[in-house]
Amino acid sequence: MDRQERWQYLKIESVPLTVAIIGGSVAGLTAAIELRSLGCHVEVFERSATEMKSRGGGIVLQQNVIDWFSGTLGLPIDQVSTRTDFLRYFDRDSKVVSNRTKVWHNTSWSTLHRTLLAAFGNDNYRTGAVAVDIEQDEYEAVVTFEDGSICSADLVIFADGISSVGRARLSPQTHPEYAGYIGWRGTVEESLLTPATLAALADSMSYYVGENTHIILYPIPGPDGQLRVGERLMNFVWYRNIPAGDHYTSMVTDRKGRISSVSVPAGEVKQEFVDQVRIDAELLLPKVASEVVVKTAQPYIQIMQDTIAGRMAYGRVALIGDAAFASRPHAAAWTAKAVSDGLALAEHLEKSQFDVKEALANWEPAQLEIGRNLFNRVREMGARSQFENSWVPGDPAFDFGLFGPDI
Amino acid sequence: MDRQERWQYLKIESVPLTVAIIGGSVAGLTAAIELRSLGCHVEVFERSATEMKSRGGGIVLQQNVIDWFSGTLGLPIDQVSTRTDFLRYFDRDSKVVSNRTKVWHNTSWSTLHRTLLAAFGNDNYRTGAVAVDIEQDEYEAVVTFEDGSICSADLVIFADGISSVGRARLSPQTHPEYAGYIGWRGTVEESLLTPATLAALADSMSYYVGENTHIILYPIPGPDGQLRVGERLMNFVWYRNIPAGDHYTSMVTDRKGRISSVSVPAGEVKQEFVDQVRIDAELLLPKVASEVVVKTAQPYIQIMQDTIAGRMAYGRVALIGDAAFASRPHAAAWTAKAVSDGLALAEHLEKSQFDVKEALANWEPAQLEIGRNLFNRVREMGARSQFENSWVPGDPAFDFGLFGPDI
Repeated sequence: MDRQERWQYLKIESVPLTVAIIGGSVAGLTAAIELRSLGCHVEVFERSATEMKSRGGGIVLQQNVIDWFSGTLGLPIDQVSTRTDFLRYFDRDSKVVSNRTKVWHNTSWSTLHRTLLAAFGNDNYRTGAVAVDIEQDEYEAVVTFEDGSICSADLVIFADGISSVGRARLSPQTHPEYAGYIGWRGTVEESLLTPATLAALADSMSYYVGENTHIILYPIPGPDGQLRVGERLMNFVWYRNIPAGDHYTSMVTDRKGRISSVSVPAGEVKQEFVDQVRIDAELLLPKVASEVVVKTAQPYIQIMQDTIAGRMAYGRVALIGDAAFASRPHAAAWTAKAVSDGLALAEHLEKSQFDVKEALANWEPAQLEIGRNLFNRVREMGARSQFENSWVPGDPAFDFGLFGPDI
Repeated sequence: MDRQERWQYLKIESVPLTVAIIGGSVAGLTAAIELRSLGCHVEVFERSATEMKSRGGGIVLQQNVIDWFSGTLGLPIDQVSTRTDFLRYFDRDSKVVSNRTKVWHNTSWSTLHRTLLAAFGNDNYRTGAVAVDIEQDEYEAVVTFEDGSICSADLVIFADGISSVGRARLSPQTHPEYAGYIGWRGTVEESLLTPATLAALADSMSYYVGENTHIILYPIPGPDGQLRVGERLMNFVWYRNIPAGDHYTSMVTDRKGRISSVSVPAGEVKQEFVDQVRIDAELLLPKVASEVVVKTAQPYIQIMQDTIAGRMAYGRVALIGDAAFASRPHAAAWTAKAVSDGLALAEHLEKSQFDVKEALANWEPAQLEIGRNLFNRVREMGARSQFENSWVPGDPAFDFGLFGPDI
């Protein structure tokens, strides 16, 4: 495919705007669906060649995502998520010490992605498309792919996540900064839990806050989206301080010797560390939490780091979602931020009558502000929970939220 | 209103059948809605002069009721009920010893009644109408009311509950038989419970089985139908053996000296027994259960008795619901039986092209059979739980169900 062909392909229809979105995960697909609904011609380019591997991670849904699902997709959120009714804190003996009512809807990356891809369809969703470069001039932005093919569009959106090629090209000075702790993550079938543990966890966002550590557990849909209690997965994130150094480097080196600054996926964490996290769980966590950790077949590691882009708008090119801000999940709001990025961008494009540069310039400040505030908040939450030990069970300052605790 | 006037009133429209329903509670209103949907002219006569007092009792909804709500009323059941996801058994120390997944939808009498009355409307719903007699001939059935007025109809349905006037007139030999134990019942606001207790109970049908006693607890909608966790009520039934005799007679005598063979309502149980049940709760029940009993402002007494009519069809007159079978709630199915009575009757009326006598004769056998089987089952459940102590926590034989455990 040479450049001219590509251009003709995208320009052939009478549309207000041609948009190339790099990255077909949550941020990319929500932006794609929203922009297409405005009449734009949208092509999504996903790096993975095959269907993306099931990523088990839990995602707590904020109100803007819920509203968009029910409004734009016409999909009641309880069809793609579990519901928890409480924020529940356990003590070391698994006794409930705080149990505030608060409804959260929770899903998994795979359920969310499957739903979004079904809504967008496969016709304009290309897999195995590895972007390697981005250029632009007054009239177009041009993405180059690994195989030498290119794509020109009026607007290019990089939604390619924490290791964004777009960010690397446009903001090469931005680097991840390690926060001094990791998250052990994983899921286990509810059906494998003891009656008492499932009873304790099934209807709540559950917390245990220990010395320089905390764990959060909540139910998410099963591997195929199962929502029935007992057929779902119990998801956890256990935050543990690991100072940078040899031990840390060994932990984030996978079974094939690759060192990551992002995560070590399920099945690729070295066995010695999997064994150790199970031993540590029984030493340090209440039974309701340790049982989940111990029974998780393939725990994995998310490195807690912050990658904060100084800008999101570069002429005809935008960075959204983790490509712009990739940070710690304490507020359960980065997915909401990613969705907000795409929806706000669409809104500004419409408002400017599809003047791309004007729209991006007007869109950037508020999204940067939301991202920076959120980053400040998760940094504070991380400091208080992992290092200052000032998190009292039930403390509302630690409630999730895109704009602040519970908002 | 003399007899001739009344007759003209009911006959004035061209309808397949005029139906007088005595009793405007759940059985009467479901039958009324169903028969009206077939084109019948239906009048409902309710004994209570004012809006019926809020009866707090919990009702577990069986599948036939759920299906009728969504089908005929077009009302998703989760708009009028709470959902529990587990059957959970606690031991004496409030430890979970069994936690099977099983979804039940639970409501209160007042929420159910409010919903049904809204669906039926007030135009053909008369209050303060106390039926005192029933007569019939080849052409009509005639109900006489306390004030001397009468009502003639092609079909008269007595849905007037456990103290049915219809049953007293048509089957005077039928008497209640005391089962040897009572149910202490009541509800408490979820918001008044301790965090640990609400956490333990909020998502389950919860059981504690002790020696010669058991208690069942589950959440039901709040007084105004509130469904949000934390705004609902926690409902309980605690079964206690009280041999017939002076102590029993004193317990079932209310504050005004009236002796009941059915129940002593909230606020009318003598204070000494309210005090005693709270003391006993702390002595005999796990904390998760005793806390609910102790915090209930006005516990009340349901006498466990069986009133079993030998017949349900008498020419042009039918007994449905508790008017036919009033027994113990162990299977949580008598409401389902009452609804089944009305729906099956409507079906047979339609099938017989509104030949009342033929329809009633064909309708009776299956409903009697369902009622007798259910009665045999609750009697067995009562014997095993209260006297034989053969109920092992989690035993599926004790699962609710209209036709058998979980069916």
